[in-house]
Amino acid sequence: MTNRVRVAVNGYGVIGKRVADAVVAQDDMELVGVADVTFDYRLRVAAERGFAIHASTSDRRPAMEAAGIPVVGTLDELLGHADVVVDCTPKKIGAANKPVYERAGVRAIFQGGEKHELAGLSFVAQVNYAAALERRFARVVSCNTTALCRVLHPLHSRGWIKRARAVLLRRGTDPWESHENGMINSVKPETKVPSHQGPDAQTVIEGLDIVTMAGAGPFNLSHIHFAMVETTRPVELDELRQALRDEPRIAFVRADQGLVALNSVIELMRDLRRPRGDLWEVAVWEDALASDGREVYLAFQVHNEAITIPESVDAIRALTGIERDGAASIAKTDAALGVVKTFLPATAGRAR
Amino acid sequence: MTNRVRVAVNGYGVIGKRVADAVVAQDDMELVGVADVTFDYRLRVAAERGFAIHASTSDRRPAMEAAGIPVVGTLDELLGHADVVVDCTPKKIGAANKPVYERAGVRAIFQGGEKHELAGLSFVAQVNYAAALERRFARVVSCNTTALCRVLHPLHSRGWIKRARAVLLRRGTDPWESHENGMINSVKPETKVPSHQGPDAQTVIEGLDIVTMAGAGPFNLSHIHFAMVETTRPVELDELRQALRDEPRIAFVRADQGLVALNSVIELMRDLRRPRGDLWEVAVWEDALASDGREVYLAFQVHNEAITIPESVDAIRALTGIERDGAASIAKTDAALGVVKTFLPATAGRAR
Amino acid sequence: MTNRVRVAVNGYGVIGKRVADAVVAQDDMELVGVADVTFDYRLRVAAERGFAIHASTSDRRPAMEAAGIPVVGTLDELLGHADVVVDCTPKKIGAANKPVYERAGVRAIFQGGEKHELAGLSFVAQVNYAAALERRFARVVSCNTTALCRVLHPLHSRGWIKRARAVLLRRGTDPWESHENGMINSVKPETKVPSHQGPDAQTVIEGLDIVTMAGAGPFNLSHIHFAMVETTRPVELDELRQALRDEPRIAFVRADQGLVALNSVIELMRDLRRPRGDLWEVAVWEDALASDGREVYLAFQVHNEAITIPESVDAIRALTGIERDGAASIAKTDAALGVVKTFLPATAGRAR
Amino acid sequence: MTNRVRVAVNGYGVIGKRVADAVVAQDDMELVGVADVTFDYRLRVAAERGFAIHASTSDRRPAMEAAGIPVVGTLDELLGHADVVVDCTPKKIGAANKPVYERAGVRAIFQGGEKHELAGLSFVAQVNYAAALERRFARVVSCNTTALCRVLHPLHSRGWIKRARAVLLRRGTDPWESHENGMINSVKPETKVPSHQGPDAQTVIEGLDIVTMAGAGPFNLSHIHFAMVETTRPVELDELRQALRDEPRIAFVRADQGLVALNSVIELMRDLRRPRGDLWEVAVWEDALASDGREVYLAFQVHNEAITIPESVDAIRALTGIERDGAASIAKTDAALGVVKTFLPATAGRAR
Repeated sequence: MTNRVRVAVNGYGVIGKRVADAVVAQDDMELVGVADVTFDYRLRVAAERGFAIHASTSDRRPAMEAAGIPVVGTLDELLGHADVVVDCTPKKIGAANKPVYERAGVRAIFQGGEKHELAGLSFVAQVNYAAALERRFARVVSCNTTALCRVLHPLHSRGWIKRARAVLLRRGTDPWESHENGMINSVKPETKVPSHQGPDAQTVIEGLDIVTMAGAGPFNLSHIHFAMVETTRPVELDELRQALRDEPRIAFVRADQGLVALNSVIELMRDLRRPRGDLWEVAVWEDALASDGREVYLAFQVHNEAITIPESVDAIRALTGIERDGAASIAKTDAALGVVKTFLPATAGRAR
Repeated sequence: MTNRVRVAVNGYGVIGKRVADAVVAQDDMELVGVADVTFDYRLRVAAERGFAIHASTSDRRPAMEAAGIPVVGTLDELLGHADVVVDCTPKKIGAANKPVYERAGVRAIFQGGEKHELAGLSFVAQVNYAAALERRFARVVSCNTTALCRVLHPLHSRGWIKRARAVLLRRGTDPWESHENGMINSVKPETKVPSHQGPDAQTVIEGLDIVTMAGAGPFNLSHIHFAMVETTRPVELDELRQALRDEPRIAFVRADQGLVALNSVIELMRDLRRPRGDLWEVAVWEDALASDGREVYLAFQVHNEAITIPESVDAIRALTGIERDGAASIAKTDAALGVVKTFLPATAGRAR
Repeated sequence: MTNRVRVAVNGYGVIGKRVADAVVAQDDMELVGVADVTFDYRLRVAAERGFAIHASTSDRRPAMEAAGIPVVGTLDELLGHADVVVDCTPKKIGAANKPVYERAGVRAIFQGGEKHELAGLSFVAQVNYAAALERRFARVVSCNTTALCRVLHPLHSRGWIKRARAVLLRRGTDPWESHENGMINSVKPETKVPSHQGPDAQTVIEGLDIVTMAGAGPFNLSHIHFAMVETTRPVELDELRQALRDEPRIAFVRADQGLVALNSVIELMRDLRRPRGDLWEVAVWEDALASDGREVYLAFQVHNEAITIPESVDAIRALTGIERDGAASIAKTDAALGVVKTFLPATAGRAR
Repeated sequence: MTNRVRVAVNGYGVIGKRVADAVVAQDDMELVGVADVTFDYRLRVAAERGFAIHASTSDRRPAMEAAGIPVVGTLDELLGHADVVVDCTPKKIGAANKPVYERAGVRAIFQGGEKHELAGLSFVAQVNYAAALERRFARVVSCNTTALCRVLHPLHSRGWIKRARAVLLRRGTDPWESHENGMINSVKPETKVPSHQGPDAQTVIEGLDIVTMAGAGPFNLSHIHFAMVETTRPVELDELRQALRDEPRIAFVRADQGLVALNSVIELMRDLRRPRGDLWEVAVWEDALASDGREVYLAFQVHNEAITIPESVDAIRALTGIERDGAASIAKTDAALGVVKTFLPATAGRAR
């Protein structure tokens, strides 16, 4: 018990609340507390779960307490009890927090909303775990970049990729949002081409030739990617399938089993009774995989709320060095959370 | 163990899969198996959960088996092992199944898609549990009718209701649906006025004066009701609140805690880590309750996928007579499932 | 020509651009110019249409000109050429503009976003045209209030209304909005009960007993109202239909002709080749009208972008006194715009 | 007048009603009538517009007449008065109609839902007008294929295209649809890769190397395409822009003018007072055009309801030979309909 890594979570939103739960699920970590600046139902749930709630900024503490949130201290106090902090604050706030973490002498993990340069290392566990060992800072890349890296890494490491092209269709806003940032009956293309995810993947996978375009639409369950990967040699479907099967945190779904769209895959997560219906894996449509001898084609679902959570857990182990082997950390994280390689094992003929 | 009621579930869709899980959660019931006619991911999950899968009709068995579903028998065989069957088949199929259940000598519970006359008793646990005791048949009313009965019963039983009026806005289709029955950027009013829910509530609450209008919109998380209840005397807000607090399976939400819309309440269910994010209670907006001395006003959320599940469990107890006291059954069901009266207990000052 | 009323439009958004077009369509009015503060495609269309564009505030003029908008002057200059200004600026800006209009000595028409007290008269042409004659100020009430007044006025004036109750489901945002204020897969109830539309209708129809509840959903084509009107005596369906037929700016649609939802009625407007697909009338579902001897029930569509445009035109005539008879102004406006009493005249047997 | 081509339209749905209007707008054509099998509001509008309505199949005539539609004859009678028929019936019905048209001795134009082989020529005016001259049959390709051909033809004809890759996101259903085929809060990828549009474009543009992937989402205003075109040599942005400017029926939109998404472009069409808000051009985002020396990137909007209408008109001229020059036909059609190269001409400095 005394050897468990002490983890703080700063920012208790879509990502922070999931990181907190994931940390609690690990037997080599201890959640020493969470910090935020608001006092809506989300913080009340944190209180119900018994998390020690801190005010990220001291000026917000009175309002939080007035609203009945049991605030037990400030961010500085929280950091004083922690070995590592996972910064889950909104884009750009993380950068402002870095000096605070440095002063407190804690290691820090930032989210993909921050720039690569802030941490100096952009992290996807199965690609570059070793490079993060005992670093002060790391950045868990965004949901889309994480997914691209997971899917392209097995192809890249086999020397198959000549050039990867992908179109990303992002959700309009997150499911909890009722007020703003929504979108009704439209699709909005990004005018910046390439969109930032392609270059961002290159901060993780060196030498990857990739370009991405992006847009956003009126749905909130997940993102979806359509990737066209030009290969250095003809890659057979069987090879492709096997490469994806061998890689952690990628799982197949099949339209011919009724998993035809983003919503049906999320329904499967609900039926599997996952917390919050979370899909930590990249869900690749197995029956949409294609190869024409020049390129391979993939369509996959990226659950933006959940996909980076396992990476955050691994990053804690890498930075603190409590586990030096990436594969071992990944296996540990996945077992604790319930991340699988196969959502629906073959059931025919199995002993009952 | 030998005294547990043996329950079969026929129809493993939105309602059936939830009833199966709810039965498994009770210590006085045993799920002897489920039956269906399809073989998509839903049935595969049932297989993974170890449920004994049967073919609802024998002609479907070969296709199910060919798809790898481990079918262990037919509906008739399933009924042979059961004391009671919960029919969760689509509208009108239940009526066709009644003779099958009669022949098999099992008690049967139908869903709200069937007519009142089929079962002769329309059931909402907190209203008429006693009337269902040891009956052969009962009908758990639809999600909307269940919600109306739960909310209006405490007002009706206090003699407050002169006339209730409600407008129901239904979800366009269920979350799992990707193919059809959807709706984009529109609202479709029902041309039948009153809509069927008002008269249907009268099959449960005798003497209730009620009228309803209905429509459907392009969302799939829940229904929402706006009720205007003309009262026999001025009803104060405090009285109204207390009456709702005293009633089972009604819980308050507050917009000033960030629970401002259907999606934020469902997000709370996710945060509470409920299976499938289910909301079994009627969620009434506490800060939208109003009274003007002539009427009281209520806005509430009806999670169509989940709200009738507790009633189905209670109906099993009532029909089989294993629990003769309605309040005791409700308490037992609610404890087993996690149904609450307060989503977010006051947390200020509580011992940590 | 010299006797035409000179009209300025301040604010060239959803309402302003339509008012400008409507003024151009009248033979007793002249559009002397429009004013705004932006320079996106909307202003470019105004330039293409040859409207004289002015900067609503002088500090915005440089940016507008830099963007290539042909700005010909300031708001003050525009008002100097006008007899009356229609203020179509966002909520609360109108109030700030009132002193400007007073100084310029022009009559002014405000929108429903402003308070009743600002203008002292809340205007719906068929209810209180005479009261607006030669006033300095009037307020054209909001889309929802306009619709409620049009539909309830014929019932109120016949002495039929004991109490009117309505639930209003508003669109989440306007069709042009891509950035914000959207809503995905949810419905948001208003916690203020009664919602403001009921009391607002009472500023137009004296003595009307009415209460409203409201919410907003993830669609943008129109609002929809469900009204339950308690009557002082049994009102037959035929009477109700006739009363609505006798009233201007109400037209029937029928679900049995395929006009089943908000989107199909808008599709009809498109097929009728109306500018922008605008629906100026309240579209009442004829086959959803109902009466039970105690109440009458109505479901109707309120095209928020368009419904108040005819009122704005009439308000110009009333304030300037160029037409002293309300019915004559309404007829003139409706003929010029194409407002009808019947969308689809009976076609069987007509001479071809 | 006597030399005008006599045109029949069979199928009065989304496409048929627009083709009928477009034919009426040409001075070298005459609409002799339309045929359909239904009797909802759409046919009533056709009657109001004075179109001669025929029953596509004689068994439907009584129901149409009973509903008050002024049916003047059968499809056979209609074909007897026509030189050419534009078949706008649902997918696969066109194939069944071909023998009917052959028997009647009329030329026929089919829609993209039919196979290439049915007509033997897949038509996009600016690509292969000459090949269609005086043919008995032609097939106007689908909206998506038409857009791909328009955009890629200028690049292909300049020898720039090495390989074109595109991801197409289709609308979930058409705006008039309220009943079915909708989709809520999801995206559905096509599992067939390449999707049919790529190969279909090759039936129009010989030698084009292209691959497409596709999906559908919960919106109904238009499709959107993201294209990545690998070039045979570095193509500068200026060259690309000029090539697109030189091509008919392509027009630029700019996000920095507020045209940021599908809905804002449609709002522009409404503001331009186009019938039904139709966008006949491919709208290419000028400020999203990109080139990296190896590829060029394009995002464009495809208004599925409208984009093929100009092609249908041209196909009539080509098949009947009344205009032998493709460019002349295109110019004639575009002038008659209002198809433009520039939605918003530069307005700065223009004489007012």
